[in-house]
Amino acid sequence: MSSNRIARAAAFLSFVSLPLAAANADEGMWTIDAFPAAKMKAAYGWAPDQAWLDKVRGAAVRLTGGCSASFVSPDGLILTNHHCVAGCTEDNSTDANNLLKTGYTAVSRERELKCAGQQAEVVTSIADVTPRVKAAIGAAKGEAAVKARSAVIADIEKAGCAETATTRCQVVSLYGGGQYKLYTYRKYSDVRLVWTPEAQAAQFGGDPDNFNFPRYSMDASFLRAYENGKPVATPQHLKWAARAPIDGEATFVVGNPGSTARLQTQAQLAFQREVALPITLATFSEYRGRLITAMAQSPERHREAFETLGGIENSLKVQIGRVKALGDPAFTGKLAAAEADLQRRTLTAGSANPWTEVDAAMRAYRNFYIARRFSTPSGDLFGYAMTLVRAAAERTKPNADRYPGYSDSSLPLVEKRLLDERPITPWLDQLTMDWSLSKSREYLGADDPQTKLLLGKESPEALAARLVGGTKLADPAVRKTLWDGGQAAIAASTDPMIVYARTLDANDRGLQKRFDAEVDGPLTAAQAKLADARFAAYGATQYPDATFTLRVSYGKVAGWMERGQMVPTRTVLAGTFDRATGADPFDLPPAFIANRAKIDGRATYDFVTTNDIIGGNSGSPVIDKSGAVIGAAFDGNINSLGGNYGYDGTINRTVAVSTDAIQQALEHIYPAPALVAELRGR
Amino acid sequence: MSSNRIARAAAFLSFVSLPLAAANADEGMWTIDAFPAAKMKAAYGWAPDQAWLDKVRGAAVRLTGGCSASFVSPDGLILTNHHCVAGCTEDNSTDANNLLKTGYTAVSRERELKCAGQQAEVVTSIADVTPRVKAAIGAAKGEAAVKARSAVIADIEKAGCAETATTRCQVVSLYGGGQYKLYTYRKYSDVRLVWTPEAQAAQFGGDPDNFNFPRYSMDASFLRAYENGKPVATPQHLKWAARAPIDGEATFVVGNPGSTARLQTQAQLAFQREVALPITLATFSEYRGRLITAMAQSPERHREAFETLGGIENSLKVQIGRVKALGDPAFTGKLAAAEADLQRRTLTAGSANPWTEVDAAMRAYRNFYIARRFSTPSGDLFGYAMTLVRAAAERTKPNADRYPGYSDSSLPLVEKRLLDERPITPWLDQLTMDWSLSKSREYLGADDPQTKLLLGKESPEALAARLVGGTKLADPAVRKTLWDGGQAAIAASTDPMIVYARTLDANDRGLQKRFDAEVDGPLTAAQAKLADARFAAYGATQYPDATFTLRVSYGKVAGWMERGQMVPTRTVLAGTFDRATGADPFDLPPAFIANRAKIDGRATYDFVTTNDIIGGNSGSPVIDKSGAVIGAAFDGNINSLGGNYGYDGTINRTVAVSTDAIQQALEHIYPAPALVAELRGR
Repeated sequence: MSSNRIARAAAFLSFVSLPLAAANADEGMWTIDAFPAAKMKAAYGWAPDQAWLDKVRGAAVRLTGGCSASFVSPDGLILTNHHCVAGCTEDNSTDANNLLKTGYTAVSRERELKCAGQQAEVVTSIADVTPRVKAAIGAAKGEAAVKARSAVIADIEKAGCAETATTRCQVVSLYGGGQYKLYTYRKYSDVRLVWTPEAQAAQFGGDPDNFNFPRYSMDASFLRAYENGKPVATPQHLKWAARAPIDGEATFVVGNPGSTARLQTQAQLAFQREVALPITLATFSEYRGRLITAMAQSPERHREAFETLGGIENSLKVQIGRVKALGDPAFTGKLAAAEADLQRRTLTAGSANPWTEVDAAMRAYRNFYIARRFSTPSGDLFGYAMTLVRAAAERTKPNADRYPGYSDSSLPLVEKRLLDERPITPWLDQLTMDWSLSKSREYLGADDPQTKLLLGKESPEALAARLVGGTKLADPAVRKTLWDGGQAAIAASTDPMIVYARTLDANDRGLQKRFDAEVDGPLTAAQAKLADARFAAYGATQYPDATFTLRVSYGKVAGWMERGQMVPTRTVLAGTFDRATGADPFDLPPAFIANRAKIDGRATYDFVTTNDIIGGNSGSPVIDKSGAVIGAAFDGNINSLGGNYGYDGTINRTVAVSTDAIQQALEHIYPAPALVAELRGR
Repeated sequence: MSSNRIARAAAFLSFVSLPLAAANADEGMWTIDAFPAAKMKAAYGWAPDQAWLDKVRGAAVRLTGGCSASFVSPDGLILTNHHCVAGCTEDNSTDANNLLKTGYTAVSRERELKCAGQQAEVVTSIADVTPRVKAAIGAAKGEAAVKARSAVIADIEKAGCAETATTRCQVVSLYGGGQYKLYTYRKYSDVRLVWTPEAQAAQFGGDPDNFNFPRYSMDASFLRAYENGKPVATPQHLKWAARAPIDGEATFVVGNPGSTARLQTQAQLAFQREVALPITLATFSEYRGRLITAMAQSPERHREAFETLGGIENSLKVQIGRVKALGDPAFTGKLAAAEADLQRRTLTAGSANPWTEVDAAMRAYRNFYIARRFSTPSGDLFGYAMTLVRAAAERTKPNADRYPGYSDSSLPLVEKRLLDERPITPWLDQLTMDWSLSKSREYLGADDPQTKLLLGKESPEALAARLVGGTKLADPAVRKTLWDGGQAAIAASTDPMIVYARTLDANDRGLQKRFDAEVDGPLTAAQAKLADARFAAYGATQYPDATFTLRVSYGKVAGWMERGQMVPTRTVLAGTFDRATGADPFDLPPAFIANRAKIDGRATYDFVTTNDIIGGNSGSPVIDKSGAVIGAAFDGNINSLGGNYGYDGTINRTVAVSTDAIQQALEHIYPAPALVAELRGR
């Protein structure tokens, strides 16, 4: 845990991954180079061709902050969610000028606001590098296998993107090690805020309405990609269709689902249920409580932690949904049956059994999971320090030998995130560090050597106060000096946070080494065999688990049955006024009140589709058959909260804000005539 | 949840309840009228006779605040834990005179401090009323069965204790409905604080050390029972033996374990694992976080919420232990095997199957558990209001027809708790109410009718602020007027908290009715059959689940193997100084520092025994073969955290503070010469 922005991106979900279940016709987060056109055509009578997919790929944007998005004008204009830009909005706010509260419309391009740490990326090519990676791993096992894999991937990435100012190469492991693909991106590392509504409009209903439907949320915003101080040209963009969705029409969600665990074995799910999830539930809930009380102390604190709390609450809801899903025998029974089916088709007397290899790895991980989870504290400032300490050491090594995340292909984004100027909120960093250190002590135990390493003889409160109070790392110039100074500067630094990170470094590396040897290495080998087994048993009907890389989901605009009642496909703008109670979080956004007479109450506000998405998909365009954008996905319904493990098309739904509503907002609620003209292509 | 003192009493624990497991020789929380003397004699070569047990029964004290204790002098002196009197100590503190910080020694009996709401109770007789209760239930089912049972119990209790000023009658349901016993108590409703050490000494190591061993905790205090303004005579008291325990010696813990679920079926455990525990984990953790941040705002707030936080952290640790136990297939497998064994011995083709009846009841409960759990908010002031509203209505009804907890035999303690003067901390009550209302909304959903009933159009924050700010119920005179005024006064009241409680009353009663009909009634019937089946299969080798009534556990002073190392049976006072870091919660108590030279560092501080205890046992005397007290139980080791479901004698341990250490404290650390003389019987 190295950032208090633990959960910047909303996590969206869905239900059951049975390979044979006909009910789950719309299931799947498909890679764009393996779209199941035949399957979709059989169900819908139509499917996109390669040209359609290529066009969409060129307009689909990954935001490195953890979201998805799309280009919607030739001038680099990007549609995404409000909650994906809330961090940037908060960073650009002051007590006197709280943009989360007021919303923001750049009156001219000069007034578009830089988003620190944010980068927009578009996939330009995908190449299969499986043979090369597998050959490099060869017969190596455990830590050696992990090292061989890291080395060859570092090589491939470096060779693929010689020019790192505008391109980025990333080898993605699909099917947990069954396939390796090289994704090449055009990257835009200057991203600016163009338009964002009041948080009150985007988060109307707040945590109570999150992952529920009907929703009344204007969870949309616009960014713009810049290069050399100018908007970039983006001829490949989606057409803006400011219209209501039609019940039953086909929809595509194109974005970057973050991660799923649908191909995990029973042993891996048991690990989650028995070991990891209960810790997450308790620790995140406590953090939430600490934040709520701290924020009630003043309007400034409320503003400063607003987005952190929102992220935690969203994440917590996802985790609670996971606990519920993995605690439901009806749900887990289906997963177990799918595993048994594959075993029946695969295992023969005397054959290697990849499931027992996974079992062994998960058993091994139980012995040091808590140590690894609680090896370093959370907090932005500590995160800077750890990055500086580690990067200084890694940059002296050959590219192939480096710690995960510090290869040449990764360093530009590491450096950007480290050096971009953004405000640090010391009290929040201190609260976060205090909380995470006290949780380390709680789960490790007061007598554990790692607790002693983390705390010495100090209390979590005192240590956090001393480090946050004493460090100069909030200043980007200080970080730059340390980054440029390399090993010598780090070794000579007396900054208390740097000193502290140096203290923790060796132990953390030791845990990573153990993880590579006992967990990652064996798991990757076993999962590669499981992937082969699945292809042999079911053919190419399987999509890989999500990896925060580009995926396409197809589906349709459709409601669902809830307690015997059909939930309609959409809400309309007028509904906001009916739902308002006047009390937070159901208080009307001021701009809605002020412009009520102008708003077309019949315009579709939010709507639901059967698309299969999850966290990371936030901001993804919802696209119609013609390739035009008709909404931005921002949530899932409550039934989708087990989506990490499986999808059930009868009840899992994506929730999107419609272009119809966004257009109303741009015309009448938060008027932005230049933006409207740009979207209309005038 | 009707009090913010949710977890006043520490909850202690232990592991596996297999009827046939020889390893668990010391297992059992036995009723004092069914002590397994033969079994103990077989294992220990000695067992207490009836005279021994009767003598101990007459000295064993139940504290209605949720703890256990014992008389240790002829003048009503009571030994219990510091954490059992922390609420009283806090109530008697001010910012200028914080007794939790300084400790307290009454320099004379006149200076002993009243403990609001506290009552001491000693069992005087136990009578079997099973035939009468079962006959009254007869063939009734569901809600009718519950009503018939309540009515006959109300009758029995009223008839048994005509004089309610000094006696109390309580019919206890054992084996979940298999047996009914009438317990008659001598009660003492004026209990005062005599001696308590610094909280820092009692809670040295704080939450990190809780449920761990080695411990260095002076978790002891003395109270005194009064009547008519004078100390009561207690000729039946335990002899004070200020000595170190001897490794291997037999020990008895005599006290009131609160509740266990060792006889629950797989369906009941699944309900806990899948439904109840995850909610507890998340909501209590958030409450903890809210408290931690609020307490950091000022020393006053730290003092005012210190004990509430301690209770929540203790309770949370217990719940985390339960989650872990029920998530561990090795542990739950044993429970399932025990159930299967009983089914094999019991079920024949065509016979009634009580397990399926339990299954049906738990399935039914899933439909409204969240509604029932979140039907009213937490908070002392709301608790007062709900009690007033309900008691006014119930007192107009015949004794046999009343809502649970309002029968004639229950009313004296209800009234005492309501009318005793104690300080209310408005900010804490408001925080608690805000938290619990926001959790109601979260789990019920914003659109649920019960959420609308609870909140109307207000936010949890605003509603809590309005009610706590507007009510006059903090004043005991106001409560007394409303209590005495009965139905008319309640109906006429405009106190916002009373108005609010009136609003919620009908819905809450409806849920109770549904619970009686669909859960309690069917469960009681099924559990009675299960109890009969167990007696038929295993004979009288089974103790009932804990019910916060008097139980005896036998065991011995013994360490255990932890990761291949034997944990010694005890710590010594000198160890506190070695463990101290100077940082909270490992900072030395000032009185320890000041008196270090006088303290005998070799004196046994805390020690462990194999006794089988759980929450509610806090403060129980640890008694040797001679019937003398050698310690006060206050904690369990980490392995005991699954003790709600089962006991494993190889690793589960009770942790007690020794009389050896308490004597050192009374002589040298917090000198109390009069108390020492009284304990010595001089």
